[in-house]
Amino acid sequence: MERIPILKMGPFLLVTIQVDLYDRLALNLESDLINMVSKTGARGVLIDISAVSIVDSFMGRILGNIASMSRIMDAETVVVGMQPAVAITLVELGLTLQGVHTALDVEKGMGLLYEKMDIAEHPEQDEEEDQDDSND
Amino acid sequence: MERIPILKMGPFLLVTIQVDLYDRLALNLESDLINMVSKTGARGVLIDISAVSIVDSFMGRILGNIASMSRIMDAETVVVGMQPAVAITLVELGLTLQGVHTALDVEKGMGLLYEKMDIAEHPEQDEEEDQDDSND
Repeated sequence: MERIPILKMGPFLLVTIQVDLYDRLALNLESDLINMVSKTGARGVLIDISAVSIVDSFMGRILGNIASMSRIMDAETVVVGMQPAVAITLVELGLTLQGVHTALDVEKGMGLLYEKMDIAEHPEQDEEEDQDDSND
Repeated sequence: MERIPILKMGPFLLVTIQVDLYDRLALNLESDLINMVSKTGARGVLIDISAVSIVDSFMGRILGNIASMSRIMDAETVVVGMQPAVAITLVELGLTLQGVHTALDVEKGMGLLYEKMDIAEHPEQDEEEDQDDSND
């Protein structure tokens, strides 16, 4: 199969990675995702990797690329469902997925994205709250 | 890969089928789904087949099985994202996916499931509305 399906869920896009990402598939995924962000005005991208048991530096770079591209398009990226062994491997490889947010599962990832949207849309509110705290 | 990931989204479960379903994988998916429905108390199952371009009678039977099993566990099944060519093939094969609801995409599928939950939880309300209509 040449393409990984991208599902629109409210203001977010959801991608489930179930197969090994080889070059062509990864490039297709990058361009499809960016086009979808542009077309739908999505504010966040959720990438579920719970089915991924082996991760290498290529995969790490692809995730980083997607996050960087999405941020330029004003969408945050959250990687969800990482298996513990994958996290261990990533750190051992020296890949810390900079710029990529992570969450335990899709629901927590969505919660994180909603929080980030709220903060982006009401920045002055948070500042006020911070001031209140400092006055106490 | 031996298993297809099942994502929990609020009261529903979401499965994206991206690979050809062979016997073992299909059986695993059936049992994993039923276990997840039981564990999470999910009220609906969404199966996205937008990446599936070829469908045969085996796939049709698996979808029917999942729907029947879920219904016994009090969860409705909606198949979403079917490609037009797949719908044509299904009808030509004489497979009409009885007992399986369908929707154009995940968002519409979720809408359908929420409607069904509302009707199941407030049946008297709907009856009253029907009576009002008949009085007019």
